[in-house]
Amino acid sequence: VRCCTKERAAIFSIGSFGDRWHEMAVSNGINADLFKSELGSITSPEMVDQVLSTGKYDLVTITHNETSTGVMNPIDEISKVIKKYPQVIFCVDAVSSAAGVKIETDKLGIDICITSSQKALGLPPGLSICTISERAVEKARTVKNRGFYLDLVQLYDTIKTKDYQYPSTPNLSLMFALNYQLELIMEEGLENRFNRHLAMAEYTRNWAKKYFSLFPDEKYASVTLTTVKNTRHISVKELNEQLGKRGFVISNGYGNLKEKTFRIAHMADLTLEDVKELLLNIEDILSI
Amino acid sequence: VRCCTKERAAIFSIGSFGDRWHEMAVSNGINADLFKSELGSITSPEMVDQVLSTGKYDLVTITHNETSTGVMNPIDEISKVIKKYPQVIFCVDAVSSAAGVKIETDKLGIDICITSSQKALGLPPGLSICTISERAVEKARTVKNRGFYLDLVQLYDTIKTKDYQYPSTPNLSLMFALNYQLELIMEEGLENRFNRHLAMAEYTRNWAKKYFSLFPDEKYASVTLTTVKNTRHISVKELNEQLGKRGFVISNGYGNLKEKTFRIAHMADLTLEDVKELLLNIEDILSI
Repeated sequence: VRCCTKERAAIFSIGSFGDRWHEMAVSNGINADLFKSELGSITSPEMVDQVLSTGKYDLVTITHNETSTGVMNPIDEISKVIKKYPQVIFCVDAVSSAAGVKIETDKLGIDICITSSQKALGLPPGLSICTISERAVEKARTVKNRGFYLDLVQLYDTIKTKDYQYPSTPNLSLMFALNYQLELIMEEGLENRFNRHLAMAEYTRNWAKKYFSLFPDEKYASVTLTTVKNTRHISVKELNEQLGKRGFVISNGYGNLKEKTFRIAHMADLTLEDVKELLLNIEDILSI
Repeated sequence: VRCCTKERAAIFSIGSFGDRWHEMAVSNGINADLFKSELGSITSPEMVDQVLSTGKYDLVTITHNETSTGVMNPIDEISKVIKKYPQVIFCVDAVSSAAGVKIETDKLGIDICITSSQKALGLPPGLSICTISERAVEKARTVKNRGFYLDLVQLYDTIKTKDYQYPSTPNLSLMFALNYQLELIMEEGLENRFNRHLAMAEYTRNWAKKYFSLFPDEKYASVTLTTVKNTRHISVKELNEQLGKRGFVISNGYGNLKEKTFRIAHMADLTLEDVKELLLNIEDILSI
């Protein structure tokens, strides 16, 4: 958002991580407007169309998978709208979806797609990974005050001219771990991997509907984690303590949704068997 | 430099890493002037005094140990000068010296002291570590546009109020490694550690003077690495290839000093015995 916004950024938010993108823009002195959807809802293609039709914006950010609400935005439909505005740079936060869900950056016209090592890639935290289009690099060249360590132009140019070396010392051990993990991902096969994620998501959603209820509209429920509405008013904190003793962990609701929802992650190296075992343990603890 | 400069930063440089600090300031839109010393020389206390006496600056940066030239700045003497200007925030790049050399931040009045995991701490790269004074935090609160991930105020406030949690997901595996390494360092004892570094430095310097010559003035030669003037006009690249076959590695000169100098690191977990073995192997390869 700092490197490619020259005029004004349109930040669409469906939860905490969308809001954070706006904080980042503001703290970097970027002109940016925040367009929030209700918690549990998506950024609709109509909203994006309406905002971009003002002609005020040259960059748009979309959260693909909002970890705080378990909502996955319909990025294919949103991309169709954004394509109507060729001057706009299209940025996607795919932190918790990339490597668990297919994201065709070229086909969708995504200029910058950002992810992180510790979510669906299944590695420890410490590495952020991003794809960048030629269009975005050229745009960034026209933007001043891009900073040093996170300057996409300096990163791009150094990688291109220096045989994949970086301008500063990078996190080498995690890069080796990423390389290893990518080999395992290719061995599994991308389609197999995406199908495995889908199977885990469907199983968890059906379980949630049976015993509780889904927080987001099922049509937009995330493929990498499920946010469950706490309709039984259980103590999520206590449940998690009991699970911990058995070697499992779930997440409480994020921020304002604490105790009102809980979240079950099903991504990275987990299998459908792992998910089934976790859910059986929850049933057992809650005697449901 | 971004978080604590309100007026103008005085950047003192004795090599590539000092220059880099100036690039960082400029790329973040900070007003900054660069004061360079000749390669191989120090930032003299007199220079600092002259620059700060203009009253134009509210922040000063000093490179403690310049890895490109092997020069260690006389930070004690420089600190005495900076104390004459109480409005100035004093920042030190101790990337390649901290944990190898004693740096008394409080006594010297250093407001921000930065280091990194991959040098004298002896860990893989991926973590930067910094100390920050209350004075610097208060100053930073008055500065706008501090960015997001590297905003010292947000980091400080989150750590203080949230029981040492971070605003964003940190590099956890390296933090555990750091914790382990710090325990080993305390077991060794700080004075023992500093003396070990000094013994390795003195041995390497004497070796360098015997077979080649020292690049910096011996008075200011670094305690964590020695930069040797290539007076015998050997091929550093070839020497390093031969060393590699034997399981050793040295560094070529940095940037313009390539092949004109070479650099021998003696820091972190290395012992005097390791250094002796390396130097004997160099003698053997060069038949000197």
